[in-house]
Amino acid sequence: MSIPTIAFDADDTLWHNETLFAVTSQQIGALLAPYADPENLHRRLVETERRNLRLFGYGVKGFTLSMIESAIEVSEGRVSAREIQEILEAGKKLLAHPIELLPQVRESLESLAKTYNLMMITKGDLFHQESRIAMSGLADLFTAVEIVSEKNSDTYRKILRRYHLDAQDFVMVGNSVKSDILPVLEVSGRAIHIPYEITWELEVAELGDPDPSRCRRLQSIGQVAEVLKEFFQP
Amino acid sequence: MSIPTIAFDADDTLWHNETLFAVTSQQIGALLAPYADPENLHRRLVETERRNLRLFGYGVKGFTLSMIESAIEVSEGRVSAREIQEILEAGKKLLAHPIELLPQVRESLESLAKTYNLMMITKGDLFHQESRIAMSGLADLFTAVEIVSEKNSDTYRKILRRYHLDAQDFVMVGNSVKSDILPVLEVSGRAIHIPYEITWELEVAELGDPDPSRCRRLQSIGQVAEVLKEFFQP
Repeated sequence: MSIPTIAFDADDTLWHNETLFAVTSQQIGALLAPYADPENLHRRLVETERRNLRLFGYGVKGFTLSMIESAIEVSEGRVSAREIQEILEAGKKLLAHPIELLPQVRESLESLAKTYNLMMITKGDLFHQESRIAMSGLADLFTAVEIVSEKNSDTYRKILRRYHLDAQDFVMVGNSVKSDILPVLEVSGRAIHIPYEITWELEVAELGDPDPSRCRRLQSIGQVAEVLKEFFQP
Repeated sequence: MSIPTIAFDADDTLWHNETLFAVTSQQIGALLAPYADPENLHRRLVETERRNLRLFGYGVKGFTLSMIESAIEVSEGRVSAREIQEILEAGKKLLAHPIELLPQVRESLESLAKTYNLMMITKGDLFHQESRIAMSGLADLFTAVEIVSEKNSDTYRKILRRYHLDAQDFVMVGNSVKSDILPVLEVSGRAIHIPYEITWELEVAELGDPDPSRCRRLQSIGQVAEVLKEFFQP
């Protein structure tokens, strides 16, 4: 039997991400309070992001552009250049934000790397994700890192082919049902869902009641080793 | 002998790119003429882009954010939300702009693909480059496509290793001396420089007088086949 490959999502699986976006959104909400109540602004921002996804893809730069667009919309053109500058600065702060690993991440990965082939599969902005991976100090634990523009079943099929992996020997670990779990089950891989404290509106999906021999939900990355033992027991 | 690999840059080598940025810059210059003369604005934009490169990387989204930042700067905060909206729209138009292939690109690649292993190596925004490659209709001519965040000698070294290529059998074709030529010569590959009508300020570099057995400058992609014959004559 070949060594199983365990692939990890990065944002909100290995390190905090969505909470940073949420804090930034809140700050912008407070900044733009003279023009719109925060809930209305937030709804418009999510709508704008959804509309722009086809052009911008994922990541902080697209988020910042969508925030500026929403600010102009909700203020009906009254937002000032200085306020837009603050939105720009908030976007830059997000880009430069240090990596905060989730609990037990480093020790779990170090331990798993002794038994399994570890891979990172993350979507988003190539440049920003590369610099975060470098900042995380985790890069050496992975034999391969794939930064992709979208995570659907085609993406996983291509990765399995590229690395000559058998879906039976492939497990994806991540926080997003839509990106990390459902498409992996679709290509006959296995998946471990570790929910993060919040989920971005555009990532929400239902997992239903999957077969426990192929899919599990855990509280923490520290429990992954146990499940892998069950998945790969001889 | 293994089949030589000929790698092509994309922007301004296979399709028009920098001219579109230049036209957009001009339009924004006209829009902001009440606040700054176009030359001053342009200088500030290049400075802003250079400063932000470390955070934004390459691509239209970063360019658009830098344009907004420059507009606020040169107008000393007087630029209106409607004017910023026009900058946003200009950025979106760039992202959605159809691909215009350079002359002789399709027929040259189709012909070269019969003899050589063709690869595309392009830097920039992952999401945007993927959609442009799909739109170009050229994807099937390449056995591999690499979208990278930066093109330096390390990047080329990694690609050679990843595809098990010998530098002696590798030729890079591109318009940027800084990104496509110098780093490839540095890792002992060969390079063909095909200048584009304009060069982005941040890509300007001197080629000097390289050894013609390892580096050539051509007018058009239509001449590449001839040079490759000389490079790989038995």
